[in-house]
Amino acid sequence: MTKYNCAIIGFGNIGPKHAQWITERSDRAVLKGIYDFRPEMKIKIEDAGYRPYETLQELIDDDVQLVVIATPNDSHSVLAKKLLRAGKNVICEKPAALSSADVAEVIEVAKETGKLLSYHQNRRWDVEYLTGKKILDSGYIGKPYFIEVNIQNGRRGMYGWRGHKGSGGMTLDWGSHVIDYLLCFDKSKVISVDCHLKRLFAHGVDDNIRIFLNFESGLSAIIEITTNTFIAKPRWFISGEKGTASIELIRDSFLGDGAVNTKVVTIDSCTEKDDIDVLYDGDEIIKVPVKRSEITAKEVQIESVPNPTYRYYDNIFDALDGKTELMVKPEEAVRVMKVIEAVFEADKLGHGIKTYI
Amino acid sequence: MTKYNCAIIGFGNIGPKHAQWITERSDRAVLKGIYDFRPEMKIKIEDAGYRPYETLQELIDDDVQLVVIATPNDSHSVLAKKLLRAGKNVICEKPAALSSADVAEVIEVAKETGKLLSYHQNRRWDVEYLTGKKILDSGYIGKPYFIEVNIQNGRRGMYGWRGHKGSGGMTLDWGSHVIDYLLCFDKSKVISVDCHLKRLFAHGVDDNIRIFLNFESGLSAIIEITTNTFIAKPRWFISGEKGTASIELIRDSFLGDGAVNTKVVTIDSCTEKDDIDVLYDGDEIIKVPVKRSEITAKEVQIESVPNPTYRYYDNIFDALDGKTELMVKPEEAVRVMKVIEAVFEADKLGHGIKTYI
Repeated sequence: MTKYNCAIIGFGNIGPKHAQWITERSDRAVLKGIYDFRPEMKIKIEDAGYRPYETLQELIDDDVQLVVIATPNDSHSVLAKKLLRAGKNVICEKPAALSSADVAEVIEVAKETGKLLSYHQNRRWDVEYLTGKKILDSGYIGKPYFIEVNIQNGRRGMYGWRGHKGSGGMTLDWGSHVIDYLLCFDKSKVISVDCHLKRLFAHGVDDNIRIFLNFESGLSAIIEITTNTFIAKPRWFISGEKGTASIELIRDSFLGDGAVNTKVVTIDSCTEKDDIDVLYDGDEIIKVPVKRSEITAKEVQIESVPNPTYRYYDNIFDALDGKTELMVKPEEAVRVMKVIEAVFEADKLGHGIKTYI
Repeated sequence: MTKYNCAIIGFGNIGPKHAQWITERSDRAVLKGIYDFRPEMKIKIEDAGYRPYETLQELIDDDVQLVVIATPNDSHSVLAKKLLRAGKNVICEKPAALSSADVAEVIEVAKETGKLLSYHQNRRWDVEYLTGKKILDSGYIGKPYFIEVNIQNGRRGMYGWRGHKGSGGMTLDWGSHVIDYLLCFDKSKVISVDCHLKRLFAHGVDDNIRIFLNFESGLSAIIEITTNTFIAKPRWFISGEKGTASIELIRDSFLGDGAVNTKVVTIDSCTEKDDIDVLYDGDEIIKVPVKRSEITAKEVQIESVPNPTYRYYDNIFDALDGKTELMVKPEEAVRVMKVIEAVFEADKLGHGIKTYI
C-alpha cells in the first residue's frame, strides 16, 4: 500500500479538521507539516502536535505529494496553480475560486502537469444529503419538481473572511455546498437563476440569501441560507409527483455525527372518476368531460442513512493509485461557479436571468 | 337605514356564499334574485330559495342597486362594464380581470358613471392574515425581510374554469389573493418578479407554482401554491430583523371559522464584544477590528386574532351611504393584476424581470 506525504496550507477553521482527517482517519497518509501565512499561527500548529513550515517555499521543497489548500477563497486558485506547477497533487477547499474562468485555468494547469486536483465538497457525505438521495431513489415520491434547502443559523454576523467583501458572503460560503448538492441531484441544465441577496448584519456581504434555480428537467429549487432565523424549518423539503418528503436536521453532519428526522408521505391510491367541467366562452357555455382524481396518501418509513465513513481521502488515495476515478471531479466545481456567477449577475442586474449551465 | 336591493350573477362555487352573506349577515340588503348563464342552474337557484332571473336583461331591468359578479374570470370585466353602464353598483369576484388594462378600463367606466366598484378580496378577513399583521405590528420580529406564504392542497387537478386555459390556473386563482395580502403588507414598490410555474396535473394550466417578489423596502417574498403536497408547511413564515414568526393553519378561514397556531421567537439579548477578523489580501494579512454579536432568543406569546366578523358588505353599504371609504379599493386590483402580468411575462420569457409596480 502506497503511503502519501501530505501537507496543509491554512490553519483557520477547516485546516485543523483536514489535519485530523489525514492523521486519524486514513492509514495511507503521513502529515508532514502545516503552513499558515500568519506567523503567530506557528505556535498553534505546534501546540496541536504538528510541524509548522516557516515559509510556503519550505512546504513546496519538502517531499510532499499532496497539499490541501484551506485558506480564504481569494487565494485558492493562485495557490492551486503554484502547487500544481511545483509537482504537487492538490485538494482545495470550496468555493473553488472566485470565478469559473479561474477554476478552468486551474484545471488546465492540472492537465498540463498531470497532477490530481479535487475540490473538498465534504458535504456530499452529509446524512441529510444521502438520506435525500435515498428517498428519491426509493421512488416513493416520484419525480421531484419542487425542492427547498434551508440552512439556518442565528448568529447574525459572518465572521473572519466570510464576513468581508471580495470573497466572503453566504453565496460563496454555504451556497457553494448547496448548489453542489443540487447539481449532483439533477444533471439537467440550470435554465434560469434568480436571487434575493440581503446584506443585513455582516460588513456589506450577502448574509441572508435566497437563490432560485429552475432546471430543464422541471425541477424548481429554492435555497435559503440565513444568519438570523430562530424557528427551525426542514433542512430539505421535496415535492415529487407521487409524494412529499421532509428532512429535519437534528445535528449537523460536519463532524461526522449528523442526525436527521425523516418524513415521507406517498400517494396510496389515486382513482379517477368521470365528471363534467362547465366553462364559459363569453356567453357560450361549454361542457368538457374530465377525469377527477380521488387521492389517499400514507406515510412510509424510510430510515435515515447512517453516518457514512468519511471516504473523501480514501477516494483521493485510490485515484492517486490509479485504481478509481475521483468522486469529486474538478469540472463539477466549474459548473457550481457558473451558477454562483449567475447569482451575482442576477443580483447586480436586479432581476433573474436565463441560463444554460 | 337605507336598504339596498342586490342581485348575483353566477351560482357556481362562490355565488351561493354571496347569497348567504347578503341574506344572513346583513340587515341592510335585500337579495332580489340570481342569474346564471347555465339554464339548468335555475332549478338549483330555486331549490336554494332564491328567485332565478330568466335572462341577464331581466336582472338589469329589475330595481337592483348592487350586483355581485361571481362568474369565471374571463367574463368579469365585460360584465362589470355592462352593469356599471346600466347604473348598477358592482362587486366583482377576484381576479378582477385578465389584464391590468381591463381593470383600469372598468375603473374608468365606474368613474364615468359615478357608481361604486369593489373587488371581493375576502381573504383580507382571514385569521392567518390578520394574525400576521398583528405580529408585525407587535414589533417583536422587527422589520420583515423574508416572508413566505404556502397554500397547499393534495387534490392534484384543478377543476371547473380553474383547470382550463385562458382564465384558469393557480396564479389567477389563489395567486390573486396572496399577492393582494403582500401588497397590503408592504406598500413599497415590487422591484423584481420571477416565478417557476409548473403545469403538472391540470389541463395545461399552472397548478403548482412558485412566485418570487422582491420589494423596494428590502422584503423578499416567496409564494408557493400547490395541489400535490402531503406534508404541511407553515401557512406564513416571516423573518424579521429582530425575530422569526410562523403561522400554521389549523382550519381555513373561508367559512369564517379559521384557526391558526402561532409561534413567535424574538431576540432577547444581543451584546456585542470586540474581536479581530484576520483577512488575506493576496499574501498580505490584514487585521480588522469587528464587533461580534452574542444573541439569545426567547419565545413570546402572541394570541391569534379571533375570527373577525365578515365586514366586507357592511363596508360596501357604508360606502354607498357616503359614510366611509371603500376598504377594498378598485385601484388595488390594478396593482395585483400588474404583478400577475409580470409573473406571466417572466414565465413566458423563462427568466425573472425587473419591475416597478
